[in-house]
Amino acid sequence: MELIDSHKIFSGKQLRYRHRSGVLNCDMVFSIYLPPQAEHGPVPVLYWLSGLTCDDQNFVTKAGAQRYAAEHGIAIVAPDTSPRGEAVPDDAESAWDFGLAAGFYVDASEKPWSDHYQMYSYINDELPSLIQDAFAVVTNKAAISGHSMGGHGALISALKNPNRFVSVSAFAPICAPMQCAWGQKAFTGYLGGDQNKWQAYDATALLLMSEQAVPMRIDQGADDSFLLEQLKPEKIQSAAKQKNYPLDYRLHAGYDHSYYFIASFIGEHIAFHAKHLSR
Amino acid sequence: MELIDSHKIFSGKQLRYRHRSGVLNCDMVFSIYLPPQAEHGPVPVLYWLSGLTCDDQNFVTKAGAQRYAAEHGIAIVAPDTSPRGEAVPDDAESAWDFGLAAGFYVDASEKPWSDHYQMYSYINDELPSLIQDAFAVVTNKAAISGHSMGGHGALISALKNPNRFVSVSAFAPICAPMQCAWGQKAFTGYLGGDQNKWQAYDATALLLMSEQAVPMRIDQGADDSFLLEQLKPEKIQSAAKQKNYPLDYRLHAGYDHSYYFIASFIGEHIAFHAKHLSR
Repeated sequence: MELIDSHKIFSGKQLRYRHRSGVLNCDMVFSIYLPPQAEHGPVPVLYWLSGLTCDDQNFVTKAGAQRYAAEHGIAIVAPDTSPRGEAVPDDAESAWDFGLAAGFYVDASEKPWSDHYQMYSYINDELPSLIQDAFAVVTNKAAISGHSMGGHGALISALKNPNRFVSVSAFAPICAPMQCAWGQKAFTGYLGGDQNKWQAYDATALLLMSEQAVPMRIDQGADDSFLLEQLKPEKIQSAAKQKNYPLDYRLHAGYDHSYYFIASFIGEHIAFHAKHLSR
Repeated sequence: MELIDSHKIFSGKQLRYRHRSGVLNCDMVFSIYLPPQAEHGPVPVLYWLSGLTCDDQNFVTKAGAQRYAAEHGIAIVAPDTSPRGEAVPDDAESAWDFGLAAGFYVDASEKPWSDHYQMYSYINDELPSLIQDAFAVVTNKAAISGHSMGGHGALISALKNPNRFVSVSAFAPICAPMQCAWGQKAFTGYLGGDQNKWQAYDATALLLMSEQAVPMRIDQGADDSFLLEQLKPEKIQSAAKQKNYPLDYRLHAGYDHSYYFIASFIGEHIAFHAKHLSR
């Protein structure tokens, strides 16, 4: 693991590493914020999954999260959004909603994607092991959050691992990928045409099948141009109501899909996770 | 004036405009954050001047300033760092420390620069007039801040206009441009070889000549790689001591020249300006 960038911010350290991923079969880069409390002992970890077109840096430079992470003594790990490198196949037309920077946090079963696009296992197995080996962090619990495609990734990670995550949150997540164009394109490409296999990565479907709840918060901008066609929060709201699932859904007038929206409420999300991580 | 971008953030509005600048003889873009208080009446304005290689967006997306501006009810205007456009001459070798994105906030007297590079007048005359005409802002006082080259710009603007600015602050400013390579290159190019003309744009020289003080805060990272060769805060510290000038200088261990440093202390700077703007 190679340190490729380091900056002091809010008395902690914003670090960036390159490492070889066996699961993804390529070199990967991730960022981690270590709050000042990390100098004195293990701190809990919040994983942040970014959206389409992003890499590990968007959240780090634009969300303003470090202030709150330092306040609550939480480390934040921000991975990339897909495997990377010349050997990694991309969408034939370099579309921004499939292939590079659009891994959708699933383990692909279809060729040629399956050789590299194993983002679910990377996020939920390989990367956490690496983080726990390399940094003084709390190992028996974590929290997870994300934006848009990354909100979808956070929701499915928590729903599939309720014993590992103490809380999950999302900004403008793709709530029902089986029922929107982004998700249908990605799942068809990575998983093939059998929709039974898609359910394992659909937050609304997973919630309806869940037997153990993880406290969940979703924030959505009412002026988000993707709201109606791609994000469909009403699907997961309806599922949560049916299951009496602890979903705290908040719609915010005037906010859009950008990091300006995330910056406005990331403090509340980190406080939400801090409450659960400290229990 | 054309609105080209608009986002809600921290209950206020982050706006971006394009307009024709008569002073700079080209189209210009600036950003303005209007806090939620602006809906109910005039708010005071903080001008933010960015550094080499930047445009109006770096501060807007990376500093995390909107939270504090909303808290204190202050608008923040972030202009570009030079004239722009195909007609505007650039450094012959497209160097990053002269020409485009490196206007140094001076009024150039030398050809070919003088046709466009009039950033001092743009920042101190044309842009404030435009802001006051277009937005509900307090007109009889303002504050100014900036980073690196923009820190230099903020310091000289306040030192030359002590009746207009109630406070000035800077992150890692070029404190004595006549005594460093960046400043010497810029002043030679824009102002010619006569060093007597340079003094009108050198913060340390201006402070030594000042007859009226503006409360001044400077924050500097101790691990800033430009500290010794280019920034030279000891020059303005020494001048301030000699003049008994109200300079609050703070050196921060471990911080570098990046926006991670700015993000860590911009809240304190905005609180400093809010205190003076509210008097």
